[in-house]
Amino acid sequence: MFNQQSPIGVFDSGIGGLSVLRHLLRSLPGTDIVYLGDTARVPYGNKSAEAVSIYAQQCAAFLLDHNVSMIVVACNTASAIALDVLKSKVTIPVVDVIVPAAREAIRVTESGRIGVIGTRATVASNSYAKVIEDQGGSRVTSVFSEPCPLFVPLVEEGLLDHEATRIIALEYLRPLLSQSIDTLVLGCTHYPLLIPLLESIAPNVHLVDSGRCAAFEALRLLGRNNDAQQTPSNLSIFVTDHTPRFHAMAEHFLGMRVNDPVRVSVDHCSL
Amino acid sequence: MFNQQSPIGVFDSGIGGLSVLRHLLRSLPGTDIVYLGDTARVPYGNKSAEAVSIYAQQCAAFLLDHNVSMIVVACNTASAIALDVLKSKVTIPVVDVIVPAAREAIRVTESGRIGVIGTRATVASNSYAKVIEDQGGSRVTSVFSEPCPLFVPLVEEGLLDHEATRIIALEYLRPLLSQSIDTLVLGCTHYPLLIPLLESIAPNVHLVDSGRCAAFEALRLLGRNNDAQQTPSNLSIFVTDHTPRFHAMAEHFLGMRVNDPVRVSVDHCSL
Repeated sequence: MFNQQSPIGVFDSGIGGLSVLRHLLRSLPGTDIVYLGDTARVPYGNKSAEAVSIYAQQCAAFLLDHNVSMIVVACNTASAIALDVLKSKVTIPVVDVIVPAAREAIRVTESGRIGVIGTRATVASNSYAKVIEDQGGSRVTSVFSEPCPLFVPLVEEGLLDHEATRIIALEYLRPLLSQSIDTLVLGCTHYPLLIPLLESIAPNVHLVDSGRCAAFEALRLLGRNNDAQQTPSNLSIFVTDHTPRFHAMAEHFLGMRVNDPVRVSVDHCSL
Repeated sequence: MFNQQSPIGVFDSGIGGLSVLRHLLRSLPGTDIVYLGDTARVPYGNKSAEAVSIYAQQCAAFLLDHNVSMIVVACNTASAIALDVLKSKVTIPVVDVIVPAAREAIRVTESGRIGVIGTRATVASNSYAKVIEDQGGSRVTSVFSEPCPLFVPLVEEGLLDHEATRIIALEYLRPLLSQSIDTLVLGCTHYPLLIPLLESIAPNVHLVDSGRCAAFEALRLLGRNNDAQQTPSNLSIFVTDHTPRFHAMAEHFLGMRVNDPVRVSVDHCSL
């Protein structure tokens, strides 16, 4: 399936995928990872499906040029819109963030009432609801989805425990909580940074971190377990625009020092 | 200088420039206008100066291909970063949003203490402060600038008079108000939609709408006045990505019905 010596490729529209990367680095020590943040076109969540599909294919093609043995689509919007086209054009394993998180939600729900939050594009694609309903069988009663478009800028501004964020989160979650959900999928890789706030608003709801689920799925496909190799990973970070805040945010998300990202163009990459 | 029969070209990263367009349509009845919203790469405010410069040149080149006689850069970030390069490469008049608004701030201030709010990129460029200090002479004592990065997503989500927006606005404006400014430049074309909220927070401060100032500057260059021609304008709207919310937002900003925007690619346009 894949070459254990080759790096794993990870891409996202920007910084959100770094929350996936954090789990990969913890779960896969000794594995080389190539990360691409498409910061020149961030955010994907308010772009059209056609645009997101093209961007995702260009990102995947860039990673293939770096001889990766697996691609992790660390972006819910790209997973929701472009997973099928990527899987049809790429011969190495492609791990998305939606299917693993949908399966985890099915596993942990007790009442069968599952909520999903994400960007407008992710929610409009209905991808989570489709997978949860297809694979959930009798374990799933109902899926309720709500777009939370302001969570990404609020997280990017670091307003993780701010009064304004709490007010907006209460509004976004109210229709889901009124449906008595017992499980909430955080269908955007920015949202794990809001877990303390969301837990305080919905203390009795299981929160499913889609990035963490994707990292475990990659681990499963690689046939590894956490203590297989304890050598440090070699991490290369590429971005399509060298924005001043990326480096600081990367160190914040990863909780470690990282080299300056290298700026690249992916406009001319194609599958 | 320009051909009165040719259309005026206007571009912005997305919908913010529609607030400039609204003033142009009111001020220049009977004038054809070509509007380009670079929605595939919105927002510009958190991208690098290098990226914004390239995007602005591609937008200007697209408008030149449509035989415009004047270009209005209806985006503060693009004006702050790319005005010089556009003026050096384009032979028709280029109207930006910064110089006209800076002059208006100099005109209306009484205390000489002027505040400027904008995106991170606009504030980091220091463009407003430079123009206000260069042209203000003894009328200007001090210029204070604050980035307000959450205003654009809050406006795009329509939270114009929302408690969360008020809390964030109070935080953003506090350091400016503590400096006893008497004039505040709204250095982003999204911000005029927040004027009622900002007036309630800072009732004794003159608010300068940069888009309105740019429209008057275009009018002055065209040698027109408001009652020159009262025939309707012919408006063509192009976008680089056909996002679902653009059309509704365009009608909201312009207060009129508009045709569906036409999607175009500008990646290969160059000056």
